[in-house]
Amino acid sequence: MNIDFNADMGESFGMYSMGDDEGFMKYITSANVACAFHAGDPTVMKRTVALAQKYGVQVGAHPGLPDLQGFGRREMNLNMEEIHDDMVFQIGALKAFTEAAGLRLHHVKPHGSLYGMAMRREEVAEAICQALLDVDRDLYLYIMKKGVAGQVAERMGIRVVYELYADLEYDGDGNLVITRHHAVREPSDIAARVIGMIKDRKVTTTEGSEIIIEGTSVCLHSDTANASDIVVAVHKELEKAGYNIAAPAL
Amino acid sequence: MNIDFNADMGESFGMYSMGDDEGFMKYITSANVACAFHAGDPTVMKRTVALAQKYGVQVGAHPGLPDLQGFGRREMNLNMEEIHDDMVFQIGALKAFTEAAGLRLHHVKPHGSLYGMAMRREEVAEAICQALLDVDRDLYLYIMKKGVAGQVAERMGIRVVYELYADLEYDGDGNLVITRHHAVREPSDIAARVIGMIKDRKVTTTEGSEIIIEGTSVCLHSDTANASDIVVAVHKELEKAGYNIAAPAL
Amino acid sequence: MNIDFNADMGESFGMYSMGDDEGFMKYITSANVACAFHAGDPTVMKRTVALAQKYGVQVGAHPGLPDLQGFGRREMNLNMEEIHDDMVFQIGALKAFTEAAGLRLHHVKPHGSLYGMAMRREEVAEAICQALLDVDRDLYLYIMKKGVAGQVAERMGIRVVYELYADLEYDGDGNLVITRHHAVREPSDIAARVIGMIKDRKVTTTEGSEIIIEGTSVCLHSDTANASDIVVAVHKELEKAGYNIAAPAL
Amino acid sequence: MNIDFNADMGESFGMYSMGDDEGFMKYITSANVACAFHAGDPTVMKRTVALAQKYGVQVGAHPGLPDLQGFGRREMNLNMEEIHDDMVFQIGALKAFTEAAGLRLHHVKPHGSLYGMAMRREEVAEAICQALLDVDRDLYLYIMKKGVAGQVAERMGIRVVYELYADLEYDGDGNLVITRHHAVREPSDIAARVIGMIKDRKVTTTEGSEIIIEGTSVCLHSDTANASDIVVAVHKELEKAGYNIAAPAL
Repeated sequence: MNIDFNADMGESFGMYSMGDDEGFMKYITSANVACAFHAGDPTVMKRTVALAQKYGVQVGAHPGLPDLQGFGRREMNLNMEEIHDDMVFQIGALKAFTEAAGLRLHHVKPHGSLYGMAMRREEVAEAICQALLDVDRDLYLYIMKKGVAGQVAERMGIRVVYELYADLEYDGDGNLVITRHHAVREPSDIAARVIGMIKDRKVTTTEGSEIIIEGTSVCLHSDTANASDIVVAVHKELEKAGYNIAAPAL
Repeated sequence: MNIDFNADMGESFGMYSMGDDEGFMKYITSANVACAFHAGDPTVMKRTVALAQKYGVQVGAHPGLPDLQGFGRREMNLNMEEIHDDMVFQIGALKAFTEAAGLRLHHVKPHGSLYGMAMRREEVAEAICQALLDVDRDLYLYIMKKGVAGQVAERMGIRVVYELYADLEYDGDGNLVITRHHAVREPSDIAARVIGMIKDRKVTTTEGSEIIIEGTSVCLHSDTANASDIVVAVHKELEKAGYNIAAPAL
Repeated sequence: MNIDFNADMGESFGMYSMGDDEGFMKYITSANVACAFHAGDPTVMKRTVALAQKYGVQVGAHPGLPDLQGFGRREMNLNMEEIHDDMVFQIGALKAFTEAAGLRLHHVKPHGSLYGMAMRREEVAEAICQALLDVDRDLYLYIMKKGVAGQVAERMGIRVVYELYADLEYDGDGNLVITRHHAVREPSDIAARVIGMIKDRKVTTTEGSEIIIEGTSVCLHSDTANASDIVVAVHKELEKAGYNIAAPAL
Repeated sequence: MNIDFNADMGESFGMYSMGDDEGFMKYITSANVACAFHAGDPTVMKRTVALAQKYGVQVGAHPGLPDLQGFGRREMNLNMEEIHDDMVFQIGALKAFTEAAGLRLHHVKPHGSLYGMAMRREEVAEAICQALLDVDRDLYLYIMKKGVAGQVAERMGIRVVYELYADLEYDGDGNLVITRHHAVREPSDIAARVIGMIKDRKVTTTEGSEIIIEGTSVCLHSDTANASDIVVAVHKELEKAGYNIAAPAL
């Protein structure tokens, strides 16, 4: 069975640098590339695609809300037409860079508040999914199993990749606990936790309870202090457990 | 012989309205659609593509400098990588909307200061042409004959459509005189002037001299006060003179 | 008794024109000038201040959410520090233009979604009021009586001017019905309605019910089709009823 | 004799961090605070003012071109009215934060390309100086002696502080060599160079020639790798040579 490693990439902007894309790209199998709304700019997008190509990593679009200052994390009350159109725009822009590099765009993963809105509100999920279909019917949607987005996408005929978060906590309701800086934890602990999520479909929440969880792609963050140690540990444990680390086939 | 009528479209932004796209689209054969850098936004782009489709008008990308406040008319010292990448981004974003509508993107026409930079500086023309090729080799480039851009494009294997300006004046050096508001002139005078440009390859400049000029696409502006009268008059005179009004074939 | 006429002004941006500031300024007594976040730009701000000065109109800051595309009407989940700081920034920027013109800034009126957030959420009202106090303790706050903002402001020692909307409807809960285009109604009807609001402290809602309402400043919109007819009619009726039309004294 | 140490501060934006403001503030006597056009945002501005206040550092406005992506380093062809108004806006916004903190704004130093434009073009210098006067006649202007800006400012009655660059090279024409990353050099070498600039009014250019130079404020950059070592070394050598390190008096 294949397990994918995805990470957010291309979040630098102009003179502002964010994350260690060059250092972390080698460890992952699919990259979620920011599309210049919440982060990234055209030159960063092009370079991130080139970096993914160098390491054989699949390129996905990581569209967000139009709010660079808030990094797409401040919920905005866009109407459904705006969400759809903002998605087509961003996915289309990134697709141009992947095609210019001779690559095919692989997936779409909404960013930040938009991700949360898609999980909670069916109409938001539909607007995003329709945009995906409008640009390229073969794109995967990356999303958490929890929430309505996955069901909406499946109903609309989209191939869905469910994802698990290795380096973020889940609260008692199964929601992610987003923090500005990711806490440092033992790579071996995280590896064990990921194995549990994949094999046993369970994870322990911040409240100590166990919840059922499901997914075949592990999301990792390059800006966790010991990010490379974590990804190496998770990779090793997964291979030991018989999994193959690879992105979903195009 | 075919003559094309092109006009800038989709320059509204959010609550801000500009131009009479709905009213003018019916008169033209190809539309230059702003791509959200100097004007336009994703929803405006989608709606403008739909409007072009409704009237059977070819859709081109009208990319500009990243300066909404200056409407892309304040020259900015971008480096060549930035120009290239900003072009790929904008053309790609619009292409997503045309493809979503089941259309093929038809051409690229740089906007405002970028247009001027492309005519004057070979490296700028190359950056724009390379972006065009990177997104879609079959796109036409719309540009004035004067200046280096056309030669650069032809050398790089791009199909070039040379354009003439019906409602703007040329100065003694053959450059356009751009004004915030377009002067109102007699439609019949403009029609005669266009016929002269196309048939005799001549135009009288603001200095009274005659210069040689060449092109098969007539650029018109929807915000000239009597825009529809002008386009109707020009259309009629051109047909009378034996020309067919149609966009270059895809 | 004095009644103030306030209107939003300075909402143009770059090449984009909005409203008829020059035409409408002569009819009002205080202007709410956009501060370049949801509308306006530095040059528009300067010119709007000059126009207010020309007609002896008091200048207030009209700060909004940082969302030009959404015109400040798409609610954004800013934290309280961000709201406070965005307000200080915008009020301070406009204050520089009024002082450069030899005027004193007169008031602050939050715009769009921020106005609504301030009426509903005490912490938002506090953030805005604290910003007002931080920039200039003597500034008036313009707000509707309904909602928490007025009480918060009074508790914090701010001089509050309650406002009534002449050309917008109130729903059954006393909230304004915001529409993209303001419906055209008879100036005499609006004048009668305003007299009712001021004298009898009552207004009929869209649901036919009567609600209690209170205020000494009448908000008018320059982009209502018959805006000048409305303001003239209201002015006349108010004077007939013994009111004096003037802004609150600095 | 007093020598001032100035540094650019407050260049972070939203989630994007730039420079070590907290670490470097203690070494300088005046801070040039970005005003949200080329860098910074309202919250960063407020925090930077608070940091300067904590260390007793004078606060100046560091206004730039409206181009966050280009960090104000891509020359833009603004007209003089736009430059003036953009300056009033930015200086005014920062002034609101200094006044809210109970401080007086100390100076204005244009940023990046705007700085270069002001040194080369008299009309640009005049537009900036007029904006300074419009906001507060007592503000100092920080600028290099070379170029027209200093003369323009003095003629307009502005107090000018000439500055020297400790950690950047001068080319044969006396212009600064701006690089994305500042080269690491020996603190003792830089200290000796600064002493030479101040005492002997000479500096050796990148071409090996000596040019005359003049100034009483030393500009340092917090993002040079060994920035604190440099500033400590320069400070020590200047005190050894009998200079007092202090900002110009308000």
